[in-house]
Amino acid sequence: MAQSDLHDKIIDLAKRRGIFWPSFEIYGGVAGFYDFGPVGVFIKRSIIDLWLKFFVYSQENVIEIETPIINPRVVFKASGHEEHFTDPVVECSSCGKVFRADHLVKEFTGIDVEGRSLREIDEVIRKYDLKCPECGGIFKPASSALLLFATEIGPYKGSPGYLRPEHAQGMFINFAKILRVVGEKLPLGLAQVGKVARNEISPRQALLRLREFTIMEVEFFFDPERESAESKNISESVMNEKLRVVTADMRMKGIEEPIEITVKELIENRVVKSAWLAYWMGIGNLFVKSLGIPAGKIRFFEKLPHERAHYSAQTFDQEVYTSRYGWIEVAGYAYRTTYDLERHAEFSKADLTYYRKYEAPIIKTIEVAYPNPQEILKLLGASKYSEVMRELSQHNPEELFRELLVNNSVVAAGISLPRECFIIKKEEVKIHGEKIYPHVVEPSFGVERLFYVVLEYAYSERDGKVVLKLPPHIAPYHVAVFPLVAGKKPEHQRMIDIAKSIYRDLVKRGFRVLYDEEGSIGKRYARVDEIGVPYAVTVDYQTLEDNTVTVRDRDTTQQIRIDINKLPEYLNTLILRELNLNMFQ
Amino acid sequence: MAQSDLHDKIIDLAKRRGIFWPSFEIYGGVAGFYDFGPVGVFIKRSIIDLWLKFFVYSQENVIEIETPIINPRVVFKASGHEEHFTDPVVECSSCGKVFRADHLVKEFTGIDVEGRSLREIDEVIRKYDLKCPECGGIFKPASSALLLFATEIGPYKGSPGYLRPEHAQGMFINFAKILRVVGEKLPLGLAQVGKVARNEISPRQALLRLREFTIMEVEFFFDPERESAESKNISESVMNEKLRVVTADMRMKGIEEPIEITVKELIENRVVKSAWLAYWMGIGNLFVKSLGIPAGKIRFFEKLPHERAHYSAQTFDQEVYTSRYGWIEVAGYAYRTTYDLERHAEFSKADLTYYRKYEAPIIKTIEVAYPNPQEILKLLGASKYSEVMRELSQHNPEELFRELLVNNSVVAAGISLPRECFIIKKEEVKIHGEKIYPHVVEPSFGVERLFYVVLEYAYSERDGKVVLKLPPHIAPYHVAVFPLVAGKKPEHQRMIDIAKSIYRDLVKRGFRVLYDEEGSIGKRYARVDEIGVPYAVTVDYQTLEDNTVTVRDRDTTQQIRIDINKLPEYLNTLILRELNLNMFQ
Repeated sequence: MAQSDLHDKIIDLAKRRGIFWPSFEIYGGVAGFYDFGPVGVFIKRSIIDLWLKFFVYSQENVIEIETPIINPRVVFKASGHEEHFTDPVVECSSCGKVFRADHLVKEFTGIDVEGRSLREIDEVIRKYDLKCPECGGIFKPASSALLLFATEIGPYKGSPGYLRPEHAQGMFINFAKILRVVGEKLPLGLAQVGKVARNEISPRQALLRLREFTIMEVEFFFDPERESAESKNISESVMNEKLRVVTADMRMKGIEEPIEITVKELIENRVVKSAWLAYWMGIGNLFVKSLGIPAGKIRFFEKLPHERAHYSAQTFDQEVYTSRYGWIEVAGYAYRTTYDLERHAEFSKADLTYYRKYEAPIIKTIEVAYPNPQEILKLLGASKYSEVMRELSQHNPEELFRELLVNNSVVAAGISLPRECFIIKKEEVKIHGEKIYPHVVEPSFGVERLFYVVLEYAYSERDGKVVLKLPPHIAPYHVAVFPLVAGKKPEHQRMIDIAKSIYRDLVKRGFRVLYDEEGSIGKRYARVDEIGVPYAVTVDYQTLEDNTVTVRDRDTTQQIRIDINKLPEYLNTLILRELNLNMFQ
Repeated sequence: MAQSDLHDKIIDLAKRRGIFWPSFEIYGGVAGFYDFGPVGVFIKRSIIDLWLKFFVYSQENVIEIETPIINPRVVFKASGHEEHFTDPVVECSSCGKVFRADHLVKEFTGIDVEGRSLREIDEVIRKYDLKCPECGGIFKPASSALLLFATEIGPYKGSPGYLRPEHAQGMFINFAKILRVVGEKLPLGLAQVGKVARNEISPRQALLRLREFTIMEVEFFFDPERESAESKNISESVMNEKLRVVTADMRMKGIEEPIEITVKELIENRVVKSAWLAYWMGIGNLFVKSLGIPAGKIRFFEKLPHERAHYSAQTFDQEVYTSRYGWIEVAGYAYRTTYDLERHAEFSKADLTYYRKYEAPIIKTIEVAYPNPQEILKLLGASKYSEVMRELSQHNPEELFRELLVNNSVVAAGISLPRECFIIKKEEVKIHGEKIYPHVVEPSFGVERLFYVVLEYAYSERDGKVVLKLPPHIAPYHVAVFPLVAGKKPEHQRMIDIAKSIYRDLVKRGFRVLYDEEGSIGKRYARVDEIGVPYAVTVDYQTLEDNTVTVRDRDTTQQIRIDINKLPEYLNTLILRELNLNMFQ
């Protein structure tokens, strides 16, 4: 089939089988919102389940949490989003229509102004004399539009809130609390799956740019001094995973053809600023491949400094090649350093540090000053003595020494005490550790974009009919169950009874199962091929004799016979056969 | 243990083990928002999975969809929420604090004014001379506060939106589209699980009244004329399910002790206005029992007319008894009739009807009028003839007859045509069906409330330690895997390797698995008892000899030995043992 119309074929299939469609159609639609039908919900959930296996369940140090979508304003003030999470827009001074400025400039001049200042954008608009494409009007100067959805929390005015555009802040503000619960150990990954909202200017491209969508994210907290030692434990299968990478350096030189490089090499050649960033890119490569995307259609594309989000010291986009839109981002890997924790500590005054225990305590010699009771009594007499001594006892000897060093005296209870009132000496102390802000790397996936690229690579046709070759572990249903003939005769009723009992047993065991008795068996096979059900079990006449059923393979259309009792384990083996979780540490 | 402090013990446990906690604590907290830690996320997800098994996967006519949280305003204008989804509030004229008026009245007078008018509430406040509990100030007259979170969609002012407070509208506005996809068949249930938001006035009671929470909901569409016949197919196990019910009639007579009544009797005695309402109450009773709630602690409490939501013709709350708050609602069963579909049809002008095909066409005799060309030509002459005939052809003969009946003439192209211009006759027509609005019943569950009551009934203590006796199918982890000793000796390393490989295999197969090697085995058992892990597998010295492991039961502390290869199937049997899905049709 021609690559160029693959996108349309998928939209067609989605519409026909109710996989997904634009929301609010009866009200004329609202750009940037999509609904999912039953097949879509199942595929989405399977992608999420698989992500959880790769990024949470198989990771010893990662746990999953859930935090609210609605946040008080202060969270996104502290995070820097209120200031930076904007898009440049231009408004037509005649018709009032608002356009995303960088998209407009790109479309009409070919110039990429992503991450450039409003002034630079205005210059390009002036230079090329760009006018409103709707009415030919002149544009007002470019401005920044905040992409956060705003709301008010509670019955009072003045309690503004925002819908989260990412999960990250929910992890950062809870980091210190969860660190205590897990026993103050790093590295610690906090994962979250859920809805986010971004008030895009003019969303297009169906599932690829939505105003409300699902994100799967890990914030991985680590001690940068231990990173090198800890990352030595990364399993060989991840270390040897080959990625296709385009670095920022390469891009600066005009090279966009990726190099093939292993996770190990990314770390050793210092292509990445954090070993953990490379680790998660490796896991992400394994994950996206396990969705059925060919390795050669995946690349990691490093962002240039001006293209990066405000919190990131290094960012790679994981991109997948699509028929209509070329390379599109399905995940971002950002090295957020200590940015977020420090900002939240500043805004909340809470202690968000990690206590780095030293392997062995450090011995340090310090100078200290102790109050000399005799001298103080002599100087002040008994009346003031105890008040002064009480106040001095609130300060530690190191502090007292420093104050003497600076002022040559210490003030207590309003009285200035000279150097003679103190005994100064040197002491050895053991320092067991220090407080640090952990560093953070973040792999973050958009589910709906993965969903779309999965459909592109699963789509195929056989004899003019659609066969969706989804990997079994992300199929909407693992298996379909059919009675061969669903008639009124007693033997047909028995087929129905057996088929339904197989269906019930498999549902109970956690399989996703479709039961269908309508139309010819051929039509039923075609219907399940189209939505990607990998196996179809048919109860036929022979079943009534010997308790066996046929299992048909979607991709080969071959059938084998198997005893009903062996079905659950057999299906399990088939479904898990292609699922490689060898990266388990 | 004393029932009165069970609530505190659960809050303690939740805090200590990071199960759930108030959100935004570093910023002083925001009422009505809670975070979930890893154990909480797993239990929540297990409750959702179980609900899906009961309400979706085992129901032949129910499919799951996903629609947006953010909706354009028109959706909640049409649904009536903008007008009715409010709470009465009173504001203090001195300090400006806002209180929920019905809660305030209840607290200080004991009078229940739920669903009463603002005027009635003001009367009670005046009669009892209620003052602001904060400052003693006088209240302004009661007013209605809208409980929808408001936002703006897109870069333009004047595109208001709301966050959904329920899923229902997402199902109603998509009903006609999905009906086409599934082949125009009723009954049809549309299910959805996801976040909703309600801008409560002053949320309290931890997980029981949240501003953002998760709802699991089915909108079940049916033809009321077929209901009686179709509900005959309800399985015996659901028909015979016994519910504890307090009807509105009983409440009017002051009786609050529930009667025990089967689903079948609810239908036959017409206690419910729809048989499907009783069906879903039966499924809901089975579901809540399977969460570990004793049957005697569940009741269905019918709302009085003034307590019902604006869209409901009959509502039962499913309530569970709690230690501190008494009976609390965990689900609502509302008979929404045709209210929502008719409203959306009115506001959108879309056709949201179902075409009810008759079993056999109905033959009807109707009167019709056909234009008589000769007479018209005679009356008008050739010049106007064709224009008039063209316009008449746009109307069907039945319409023309009706116009003649009323006006004794028909106007076409501005010319009045008398009765003589038409041939009137009787005709027989076959009518194959008619358009109707389906009726809707809705079971709707709040996940966080279920979560809380599940913890209350699972909580127990043994030798002064917490044992959370969760049913295995909703435990946060199905199984824990331990190496007996995790030391440096080669045999200990082998234990670790085997334990990790069991862990990996079980994760891959879809079990929720916890791996732990820290501290003594006794402490590890205690740690998993506390969060409700039903089984713990230990790899010990004997494992190294004969490939068997011990499996310990949380509730009995008994251990049995089993071959590693038999572990997955054995655990499956244990976990599913108590899960009764016999209501399968």
